[in-house]
Amino acid sequence: MKKTDKKIEELGEFGLIRHLTKDVRIKNPETHRGIGDDAAVLDFGDRHVIASTDILMEGIHFNLIYTPMKHLGYKAVVANLSDIFAMNAIPKQILISLAFSAKISLKQIENLYAGIKLACDNYNVDLAGGDTSTSLTGMAISITALGSGEKGKIVYRSGAKTNDLICVTGNLGAAYLGLQLLEREKKLFMENPKLQPALDGYDYPLQRQLKPEPRADIINFFKENHVMPTAMIDISDGLSSEVLHICNESETGCRIYADRIPVDRYTEELAGEFNITPLVAALNGGEDYELVFTLSPGELEKVQGHKDIKIIGHITAKEDGCSLVIHDGSIIPLQAQGWNAYGRSPQK
Amino acid sequence: MKKTDKKIEELGEFGLIRHLTKDVRIKNPETHRGIGDDAAVLDFGDRHVIASTDILMEGIHFNLIYTPMKHLGYKAVVANLSDIFAMNAIPKQILISLAFSAKISLKQIENLYAGIKLACDNYNVDLAGGDTSTSLTGMAISITALGSGEKGKIVYRSGAKTNDLICVTGNLGAAYLGLQLLEREKKLFMENPKLQPALDGYDYPLQRQLKPEPRADIINFFKENHVMPTAMIDISDGLSSEVLHICNESETGCRIYADRIPVDRYTEELAGEFNITPLVAALNGGEDYELVFTLSPGELEKVQGHKDIKIIGHITAKEDGCSLVIHDGSIIPLQAQGWNAYGRSPQK
Repeated sequence: MKKTDKKIEELGEFGLIRHLTKDVRIKNPETHRGIGDDAAVLDFGDRHVIASTDILMEGIHFNLIYTPMKHLGYKAVVANLSDIFAMNAIPKQILISLAFSAKISLKQIENLYAGIKLACDNYNVDLAGGDTSTSLTGMAISITALGSGEKGKIVYRSGAKTNDLICVTGNLGAAYLGLQLLEREKKLFMENPKLQPALDGYDYPLQRQLKPEPRADIINFFKENHVMPTAMIDISDGLSSEVLHICNESETGCRIYADRIPVDRYTEELAGEFNITPLVAALNGGEDYELVFTLSPGELEKVQGHKDIKIIGHITAKEDGCSLVIHDGSIIPLQAQGWNAYGRSPQK
Repeated sequence: MKKTDKKIEELGEFGLIRHLTKDVRIKNPETHRGIGDDAAVLDFGDRHVIASTDILMEGIHFNLIYTPMKHLGYKAVVANLSDIFAMNAIPKQILISLAFSAKISLKQIENLYAGIKLACDNYNVDLAGGDTSTSLTGMAISITALGSGEKGKIVYRSGAKTNDLICVTGNLGAAYLGLQLLEREKKLFMENPKLQPALDGYDYPLQRQLKPEPRADIINFFKENHVMPTAMIDISDGLSSEVLHICNESETGCRIYADRIPVDRYTEELAGEFNITPLVAALNGGEDYELVFTLSPGELEKVQGHKDIKIIGHITAKEDGCSLVIHDGSIIPLQAQGWNAYGRSPQK
């Protein structure tokens, strides 16, 4: 493949962007003009424009030792799309800013973009612009996602009311255990580089860590079934942290029942291997990109039959505090022990 | 000041964002909801939404040895606003992603935000969201700017036609010479840390480098005087590079006259000190954040009286190529020798 024999220096900044984006086709009528000018031009008529941004840093959010570039690109995009879905809106465009050092090859960047484009294709999103640059040290990936939301149908973190049901999609904790697996194999590899990674049979947690999928299907389900959550957030930092965000912003308390929190069977088994309580992984693990939302009790029957929506508790008055009912029936305060970008993560 | 005695670790990610943004007030009706949810919610009714993003890396785009944090924040914002103005649109919101290492203090981040907020105030832009994270090494700042543009009035790089006038705002090369000054003082300081920087009398080039101002005034002038450029771009990488972008995208050639390129008197003097031809600084220097635009010849009289708009040449047919007429009347090819994020800058 002659194309990939090229060096990044030969292409230069503009050449690199052209090279990486020459096969990008506009998919949404909302994308009036994409890559190739000072800015993208979007057109949302009389709908709300939803915008979210995120930065991922090498060594902090990803480790190139065990993260394939294509997966990294995919995950960087879907993490942002998940924020748009969590507003009950539909993502339409992303803009990508990328910085990387001389040790990164063109082939690696192409693989990263292959993941970015695959995520865009899978979620019908246009890659509408961006910036690439060099870095003296690690790689940085910043993504801004833009979406379209119906006026009056945007769901904020702040709308939960006392007695609302607290619902969770899918299952939790798997992405965190996938990370533990990768960390274990990295450690073994560092000690003995000849060792082959022993990842067979761990497909589910690895896929949840390396190639998560945001819940576009749930947002479509809401639309088709006229479900209107009162508050919603995506689970990137761990269930506890996200529920506390909703309670803080809504000025409410909550009661969550530990035995109702959905944990996959493989996650439970793997947690045992790592001597981690599955509940802890589910509450604090993060990166599952599921949704947690609150619903008026009157809307219960609209979601009751859905195999991927579980009711895990309810909203209380603020003065009742935020609490967790554990298996033996005792009540403990709900605490955020998820990811803290500025301190040691408590799970590690 | 108790507030600034706090440590970043104590605040945590969400505490830090709250701390830095608690005094942010929404200024534009287009900002339906700002910081504090998964995403910002914007509302542009029946106008185009313009979106642009940029990433700045420590050691590549800025050097913390001689860049005050407040200036860095200011410049990071205006560089993005400049991209929105260059589309003939008005910036309305920014989203900021920030990553920095443990060596950076809360006071420094507050100063960075002071610059960010000052730029937002000066250009009536809302800080509508963002993300902060830690970095293992250098600092990374990624900004996305969103703007509003009238349908049919967006100006792309691709609209230039043969015989159109090529116009430039303000003057060029000063920001580049400001950078040379700072680099010289840094070198002297590294050799002898007791030395005081000798920057007196260099206010203009330093200000152009450290606190550039994008041309909001020119976009307003266009609106008030019904001026409609055929193509436009902001000068971030150097005049040559930008004019070549217009010619590439418009599939035209151009002829630029060296003696018409506006260079400030102080820039000329300082160029002499550094043994740099002022024309080279103006053509290749970059970071002036002026605008270069093309105009139908019939629109000439609308801009002729403007003290800050100079006609420097005209668009030709593609087969005539892109050329520069220098002082002795000879014609040389116009070449982009501006900033290349992946190679050595030719000026250094």
